[in-house]
Amino acid sequence: MLACCPQAWEVLKGLPIRFDPGRFRFWLEQDYPFVEALYRYQVGLLQEAPQAHRFPLVQILLATVEELDWLLAQGVDPKAPVHPVRQEYIALLQEMGTLPYPYRLVFLYFLNRFFLEAWSAHVPEEGPWEELSQHWMAPEFQAVLYDLEVLAQGQLPLLDRARLARYLERILEMEVKTWSLLL
Amino acid sequence: MLACCPQAWEVLKGLPIRFDPGRFRFWLEQDYPFVEALYRYQVGLLQEAPQAHRFPLVQILLATVEELDWLLAQGVDPKAPVHPVRQEYIALLQEMGTLPYPYRLVFLYFLNRFFLEAWSAHVPEEGPWEELSQHWMAPEFQAVLYDLEVLAQGQLPLLDRARLARYLERILEMEVKTWSLLL
Repeated sequence: MLACCPQAWEVLKGLPIRFDPGRFRFWLEQDYPFVEALYRYQVGLLQEAPQAHRFPLVQILLATVEELDWLLAQGVDPKAPVHPVRQEYIALLQEMGTLPYPYRLVFLYFLNRFFLEAWSAHVPEEGPWEELSQHWMAPEFQAVLYDLEVLAQGQLPLLDRARLARYLERILEMEVKTWSLLL
Repeated sequence: MLACCPQAWEVLKGLPIRFDPGRFRFWLEQDYPFVEALYRYQVGLLQEAPQAHRFPLVQILLATVEELDWLLAQGVDPKAPVHPVRQEYIALLQEMGTLPYPYRLVFLYFLNRFFLEAWSAHVPEEGPWEELSQHWMAPEFQAVLYDLEVLAQGQLPLLDRARLARYLERILEMEVKTWSLLL
């Protein structure tokens, strides 16, 4: 599934991020409007999801709501001005939200996967975000992601490969830009 | 909150239902399209819900998805022709789905409350539905309903009392008609 863009994938994981708590706090604050957009993307998916897809999708939505609560508990201002890079990523998400259901489902899987891989590669295990890391790495959430992966794989034959690859490239490009805010 | 219609409420709980497993099975099959409509109503609510409302609403959505799964596991045909009484209740739900958010949230609370009260009054504790009864009566789900009640109470000052009462009467009327399918 990642045949599209092995290089961007390596670039993302290999970004030489200098970890600075103050900078990371700004980054988390900038994460809020993006996660809010992801919430809306997921609710849009649920409007069309067949019954067999709903349980894992609702579980992921629950994790998204908990993530927003966690960000608020860290004191982020949900109304802080949104950085242009985050605005660009939100615009991509909104564009993807207009695509047919099978694309949107597959992209939700990749959004989660890319983010979690990058998080694992870049964020130290200890710190105030330890709680959030533990939440994502917990067996329960990993099981939900695995269910999502299975659903996504079931949709792949319905997708145009070139169109899929173009969006995956754009998502990866946005992940690289987003994480680069910490360089 | 029930000052609108104490009589209809008593009528609902006092319906002299003759409990017949075969008939109840038909009733459960007819429940499927209604719960499906309730799923859509809840997803519509999530589109507008502020962050502080989302956690309990997603928990209730999860319970709705589980209920659909449970109905399918009982062998109900999700494509069975829909009884006119259920069609009428679904139409009411769709009509309510176009109201402003505070009304929709309050009605979601009442839909759950009326249904659970009627279920407790009418359905024997033992039988194939024991599992479903236990699910609804479980402390976790009761806690979620309590959260929903608190949210609903917070919305009440925003509502026109006469309009609220008219819809509550119509919901109760539909509950009476629905349960009367078992008379």
